[in-house]
Amino acid sequence: MRSLLLPSLLLALLPAVRADEGMWLFTKPPVRQVKEKYGFEITPGWLEHLQKSSVRFGNGGSGSFVSANGLILTNHHVGSGMIEKLSTKERDLLKHGFYAATGEAELKCPDLELNVLMSIEDVTERVNTAVKDGQTPDEAAAARRSIIAAIEKESHDATGLRSDVVTLYQGGAYHLYRYHRYTDVRLVFAPDVKAAAFGGDPDNFEFPRYCLDFCFFRAYENDAPAKTPHFLKWKTEGAKEGELVFTSGHPGRTNRSVTLAQLETLRDDAFPYRLEQIFRAETLLSAWADRDLENARRAKGMIVGTQNGRKAIMARLDGLLDPALMARKAASETKLRETAADAFARIEAAEKEARGFETRLRLLEGGDAFGSGLFGIARTLVRVADEAGKPEGERLEEYRQTSRPSLELELFSTEPIYKNLETVRMANALTFLCAKLGATDPTVLSILSGKSPDSRAAELVQGTALEDVEVRRKLYDGGREALATSNDPLVKLAKAVDQEARDLRKKAEATEEVIAQAHREIAAARFARDGDSAYPDATFSLRLSYGVVKGYADGKETVPAQTTFWEMHERSEAQGAIPPFDLSGEWKAKATKLNSLTPLNFISSNDITGGNSGSPVVNREGELVGLIFDSNAPGLVSDFFYTEEKGRAVSVHPAGIVEAMRVIYRADRVLAELTH
Amino acid sequence: MRSLLLPSLLLALLPAVRADEGMWLFTKPPVRQVKEKYGFEITPGWLEHLQKSSVRFGNGGSGSFVSANGLILTNHHVGSGMIEKLSTKERDLLKHGFYAATGEAELKCPDLELNVLMSIEDVTERVNTAVKDGQTPDEAAAARRSIIAAIEKESHDATGLRSDVVTLYQGGAYHLYRYHRYTDVRLVFAPDVKAAAFGGDPDNFEFPRYCLDFCFFRAYENDAPAKTPHFLKWKTEGAKEGELVFTSGHPGRTNRSVTLAQLETLRDDAFPYRLEQIFRAETLLSAWADRDLENARRAKGMIVGTQNGRKAIMARLDGLLDPALMARKAASETKLRETAADAFARIEAAEKEARGFETRLRLLEGGDAFGSGLFGIARTLVRVADEAGKPEGERLEEYRQTSRPSLELELFSTEPIYKNLETVRMANALTFLCAKLGATDPTVLSILSGKSPDSRAAELVQGTALEDVEVRRKLYDGGREALATSNDPLVKLAKAVDQEARDLRKKAEATEEVIAQAHREIAAARFARDGDSAYPDATFSLRLSYGVVKGYADGKETVPAQTTFWEMHERSEAQGAIPPFDLSGEWKAKATKLNSLTPLNFISSNDITGGNSGSPVVNREGELVGLIFDSNAPGLVSDFFYTEEKGRAVSVHPAGIVEAMRVIYRADRVLAELTH
Repeated sequence: MRSLLLPSLLLALLPAVRADEGMWLFTKPPVRQVKEKYGFEITPGWLEHLQKSSVRFGNGGSGSFVSANGLILTNHHVGSGMIEKLSTKERDLLKHGFYAATGEAELKCPDLELNVLMSIEDVTERVNTAVKDGQTPDEAAAARRSIIAAIEKESHDATGLRSDVVTLYQGGAYHLYRYHRYTDVRLVFAPDVKAAAFGGDPDNFEFPRYCLDFCFFRAYENDAPAKTPHFLKWKTEGAKEGELVFTSGHPGRTNRSVTLAQLETLRDDAFPYRLEQIFRAETLLSAWADRDLENARRAKGMIVGTQNGRKAIMARLDGLLDPALMARKAASETKLRETAADAFARIEAAEKEARGFETRLRLLEGGDAFGSGLFGIARTLVRVADEAGKPEGERLEEYRQTSRPSLELELFSTEPIYKNLETVRMANALTFLCAKLGATDPTVLSILSGKSPDSRAAELVQGTALEDVEVRRKLYDGGREALATSNDPLVKLAKAVDQEARDLRKKAEATEEVIAQAHREIAAARFARDGDSAYPDATFSLRLSYGVVKGYADGKETVPAQTTFWEMHERSEAQGAIPPFDLSGEWKAKATKLNSLTPLNFISSNDITGGNSGSPVVNREGELVGLIFDSNAPGLVSDFFYTEEKGRAVSVHPAGIVEAMRVIYRADRVLAELTH
Repeated sequence: MRSLLLPSLLLALLPAVRADEGMWLFTKPPVRQVKEKYGFEITPGWLEHLQKSSVRFGNGGSGSFVSANGLILTNHHVGSGMIEKLSTKERDLLKHGFYAATGEAELKCPDLELNVLMSIEDVTERVNTAVKDGQTPDEAAAARRSIIAAIEKESHDATGLRSDVVTLYQGGAYHLYRYHRYTDVRLVFAPDVKAAAFGGDPDNFEFPRYCLDFCFFRAYENDAPAKTPHFLKWKTEGAKEGELVFTSGHPGRTNRSVTLAQLETLRDDAFPYRLEQIFRAETLLSAWADRDLENARRAKGMIVGTQNGRKAIMARLDGLLDPALMARKAASETKLRETAADAFARIEAAEKEARGFETRLRLLEGGDAFGSGLFGIARTLVRVADEAGKPEGERLEEYRQTSRPSLELELFSTEPIYKNLETVRMANALTFLCAKLGATDPTVLSILSGKSPDSRAAELVQGTALEDVEVRRKLYDGGREALATSNDPLVKLAKAVDQEARDLRKKAEATEEVIAQAHREIAAARFARDGDSAYPDATFSLRLSYGVVKGYADGKETVPAQTTFWEMHERSEAQGAIPPFDLSGEWKAKATKLNSLTPLNFISSNDITGGNSGSPVVNREGELVGLIFDSNAPGLVSDFFYTEEKGRAVSVHPAGIVEAMRVIYRADRVLAELTH
């Protein structure tokens, strides 16, 4: 099936003047393109409403307000981490779903932060002026970090808003994004996971598809539902086939404007490394989950996340392993190379240098060597204390004063930590560390401390007390002194590896600086060549995309644009109703009452990627007509190339949501708020 | 749980005078040890009867005759490959089990070879004399291959028996084993896989355990049941706790007498490589199986095999990653190093050299780069034709005249080949190849031929006709000329990589020769030190082990020696009866009629490893009292060290077999033959 990918990829590399390509900045929307192709005028007012109705989930997804009282629609798989944290062995909200029949019953999430983008300011000049000619990469990186920290702090002090400087065009521009933060977020409604993730990993990134991948949260302020005058009007009828639709969301990361040398690093180094780690983790977590039902509940979210990453990376790697595709990428650079030859050469050299230390970097600074939430807590505590003594501009990014609220939210989260799961994760990570660096590497020897990976993991996880929020708070408040005298084995381990981890990060940041400077030159060449059709790579900042609802031809078959409950039932039957193609007992009992021809999922040509999960799909009137939850497999190469031939965004249809909430879940209070 | 392994391992390294250690040669049985410890005298007659009742399965397992008419007992998981080959989408013998109610209904296996050991001759002197002082490793390896081929051919010509020269003591001795071959083997009875492999991968290598992991085949000669006067008498009552029991079987490979340098290669190179490959394969095959029920049926056996390998290697790797354990291994070598210092040094140097090419060797000669049964067929055809023109002594081992019958049996097997599964396997292998050698390696570029791994795999598998046995036969009969002009894409690929693959193998054989010569010196030192307590590492040749039926202490808990049907039922309930903890509808319908206190599985201290699957467990009277099917997890390090504290062999109890066949499967004809 994957081989069907190729023709579309080749097409994608031809000049795609009329394709629905682009993850557009709200400050540089595709006004001309949409006008020319669809005769629709994007106006500032239309844009502002959509922007302020859009919500960024701190854990990596998107969503939107769908009522004036802070009601938020997103994907079940975006919310599932929270739903899992709110679950216990006795109250499994993933398995049974959740419905707050009253406002009081809405469940507060332990550590969810939402951001709503309020304004954007171009600060490119200010950032670039702070970096002087003749500085070493180290000095330049420090200068850049310092000015960015100053801009963020200044903005935060002046507005009270979360203020993030976003790097665009691989370093070609810097924008200051100001967000309203919500940290009191409550779960309102979630379907059971069998319906939300029907078809599970096997059907992930496939279409036809049959998922009720939605759930509702609510933003609170001062212990009351937040007032959200900007929200999307619900349109149960959805959009027609062929209709123009937009998405507004937070695509996480693409690699479309990186150079061939950078793609080669992904192909030969980064992706194989990540896949190796994913294959390990998926296998071992699944094996552990299969031993015991409660194990399975505890590891569920982690396994799903691993499987999702595996499929996404495999599709991309196969694209990069296609020599024809890489040749075309090289060809597409030819023009730019003429004007910015030296920049390309500097990137190539920097990539080569980086490959020499990136495995160590991922393991020791990235944390892959430890693979444990508890180790992450230990490191945060150690670093918070160390960084507190430095000037704001010299701190590691995530420890700046402006990041403190988000950091504390996460550090003091009451989410359950399962020591048996932590032990399995850590034993796996330590064994992986041995495989990658060798059992006799001095750092490995120091980490293992004379034990085998399995017994060292058991010793560390059993010995630590960091699962207790009060212990964490005490160490946090106690600062450097408390950390220095702590006997917690994970704190000691985090301290022991910190210098090498920091050194590696410093090296990496210097390399990134070289690359960013080179990309500034390439971006200038690109603007000159492409004019207003140049949009930046995704950076988990708000983007607009446009497209139409439409099916596609797959070999001799036509894949229709839409599925219904009836086809969900058919897929379940064909698979003998074995998991994950089964539905809950409650569902089956009420299924005959569903209008089986109600649309369930649909596809459109919108340009999206990971991070767009939960993005609203809106029509010309700005009404909500869908909920993005996936790409199909041919769409996964969108990391490198947008492809309209078979690549599609997959959405939940609002009619399917309403029908299931009405018939199966009887969530009348929420329905009324949506469709009143 | 794995951390519980350690204390026992440490104990295992202490002098274990009284432990039930050893995989003993039938020509050098532990007469003194058993007599001293248990007061039982192993006699030549007792041994001969056991030897000739023991059966080796060509696909890597063991079994035994249990009637005078060729009836053979082995594990379901030893037979499952055949059961799968005899299945179709419409007749799924794994799922539903199989019972031949009459002799005529017994099903002939497409390519199963069984061997029964008839005699053993020591040919060490003759082999060693052929290798001259002063020869290069290449010359010595060639001389050794040549004399071995001559000995085998001479024996085969004289006796008509399959004649294999077996390398023992890592090259310290050479024995000629003569086997009676059975190639007409028929399936008689197999339970359904849910009962045979209850608990599946999650419970694999665990105890308590509840598996009916048995099945029956029958050897035929001249289209009639073979006459087998040597067979084991069935004892339904089994053995009592504390009773002395023996196993007779074919342990595949252990690494107990290898040097520390060789263990380091396993730890740092071979095991990490193999695990990386296994994690990939397990993940991708499972994901493919989960998309479709027929996919699942086709990939089932491969997935189970992969899971089994993963658990076995992980347990061993964790042992090798224990620095304390490795230190003790080093200490155990100290004495030998005094007498054979140079031999140890030569092995260390050879290991270092081998690491430089072993990844390429595994990929190109081992076939990991292609991961496909069809490629294996193509290579066999290409090499058969090339080797046919050489003198017998210069041929690759598997292409000698004496190996032809086994080779043809496999090559012309009618087992079904599924092109969709082959494509998935090959795409996976080609992507793995890119990850290991890099996408720009010249050999990789030549193999991929300008395509991505996915599309190259699709092209090769779709383009070949080798799934057709007649096509294979034609190419086989046509010899070099037919192969030279064949346009089959897999034949062309096999030819294209053959020279490099052969060169790598030649390098590896020269290294192995250096190591074998060094081990001859070490073995001499070991004989001098250990006397008659020295037994050789496992080599998939017949071995005897002794032990007693007994439980063990696991932390504060005591693990009893035996389980029953009742406990199987309890485990199923605790896991909500989800797969693989469920039983078939037929089972559930009849389960109340089972005597639930009937013993099902039991454990004993016998020293076994992979390849012992299906070995009979016999008592002092030589009666069959059990059927080996597994080690428990603490027993898995037996690859390096025998451990009696918690390490156990796990067997099916004959009473459980009889009860299930009587009540659930009603296999009266077979029962009568067993227990008449």
